[in-house]
Amino acid sequence: MTTLSRLYVVKIGGQVIDDPVACADFLHAFAALPGPKVLVHGGGKLATRIGEQLGVTSQYVQGRRITDEATLQLVTMVYGGLINKQLVARLQALGCPAIGLTGADMNLMRAVKRPVKETDYGWVGDLTAEGIRVEAFMRLVEAGEVPVLAPLTHDGNGHLLNTNADTIASCVAVALSAHYRVHLVFCFDQKGVLRHPHDPDSVIPLIRPADMPALMAEGALRDGILPKLENAFAACRAGVEQVLIGPAYALSALSTETSTRAFGTIIRL
Amino acid sequence: MTTLSRLYVVKIGGQVIDDPVACADFLHAFAALPGPKVLVHGGGKLATRIGEQLGVTSQYVQGRRITDEATLQLVTMVYGGLINKQLVARLQALGCPAIGLTGADMNLMRAVKRPVKETDYGWVGDLTAEGIRVEAFMRLVEAGEVPVLAPLTHDGNGHLLNTNADTIASCVAVALSAHYRVHLVFCFDQKGVLRHPHDPDSVIPLIRPADMPALMAEGALRDGILPKLENAFAACRAGVEQVLIGPAYALSALSTETSTRAFGTIIRL
Repeated sequence: MTTLSRLYVVKIGGQVIDDPVACADFLHAFAALPGPKVLVHGGGKLATRIGEQLGVTSQYVQGRRITDEATLQLVTMVYGGLINKQLVARLQALGCPAIGLTGADMNLMRAVKRPVKETDYGWVGDLTAEGIRVEAFMRLVEAGEVPVLAPLTHDGNGHLLNTNADTIASCVAVALSAHYRVHLVFCFDQKGVLRHPHDPDSVIPLIRPADMPALMAEGALRDGILPKLENAFAACRAGVEQVLIGPAYALSALSTETSTRAFGTIIRL
Repeated sequence: MTTLSRLYVVKIGGQVIDDPVACADFLHAFAALPGPKVLVHGGGKLATRIGEQLGVTSQYVQGRRITDEATLQLVTMVYGGLINKQLVARLQALGCPAIGLTGADMNLMRAVKRPVKETDYGWVGDLTAEGIRVEAFMRLVEAGEVPVLAPLTHDGNGHLLNTNADTIASCVAVALSAHYRVHLVFCFDQKGVLRHPHDPDSVIPLIRPADMPALMAEGALRDGILPKLENAFAACRAGVEQVLIGPAYALSALSTETSTRAFGTIIRL
């Protein structure tokens, strides 16, 4: 039995990108993470602000943005250009050999344009782990490069597709789990999954599937966290070694194997 | 003596990008070019139009744009994001394994922020062939990838720099000429270098340094073409096998070795 190397897939969202101090701290911690790694970033308020200036007013259906042609151009500019390339330039300055990519580049991530049922979501891509070109990712990672992925895929027919960054992180993590012990990290704006929603220090250090009934019974888990946990368990069942949920500033601590941590929740089977 | 492979470095400017039909024709011809190749693209009117919408009004000094912070963000979005990723997605659809990159990605092109003398040009990068990371380019090219370069470099200290696309094409061509027989192609809006400026069919098929005195004496060369020829000869003296200047639609014909061509001017030593 060969021992696989550990590989981190780290996802940051808009709340990190929008905060210069948090973003700088995060980039230092990410650059310092040992071994192969992949960064996936979301959007943030920047796209909304620039969209307003450009007169791009996105339609929403049940809280989900419709990606019309103008919105696709907007996110291609802001996610694929501005945010992605600024992150890459800053990581390079920290000695991290970053390479900023979308799913179109090297055909890394091919998705299916979401089928029109009751709602036409427009240029939105539904990605699965099968859409990840593992061989190309491995070639980059084995050469020491650090892919920095914008939340954009393509359809193979010349169109880019707006794609959820959490989904990209999960799919890349699952697809690479045949070749690495993948640790998937979701940075979010709390210290971890909280036992008492109103006590920010009540972090649950470890959650396994067997813990769920008790946690549900005591009403510990807020509504918003349940889908995240379900996705995390799904990623683990698909091969990811563990999922970590925690604050961006704690990335360096998250990567250490301590059982008594003040922040960060580990999810594993 | 080993025989080196031929490699094309092709530069397109805004006049191709702004014209949907010309751009589609070009991409088909480029995708069909055999062997290793690199595409370098400029900007076009899109950046100006989006800049106007965003209220970014660039300052010009003697016809040269000053790249202030807002202008740098604009070109990072439009060149590095919108134009670059759309070209990549369309090339992928044509079976061309494109990868869209700036100079920050993989530290491919490191430039020096233009020193402030009489004018502060802002976030503009001066690139030389020494700033090209040849090893990284070769790794991509040898793996069959086709780099698509936006006119952006970086300073290694976390800042992107606005950089002339012609300069990028020349520097990449020169830097790779130690390892390939590099053919550098500048697509522009005429059939080639014209003997009679008012006769669009009077293309000079081949220009060598020895031809210059006679061409100058007969007043054949318009002012605007002289710097292009000087840059082309400089590239050849630095190792590039030949430079071709011609229309984007003729890219496929340019790559054939005919001495009787209706369009395209070859420049060599």
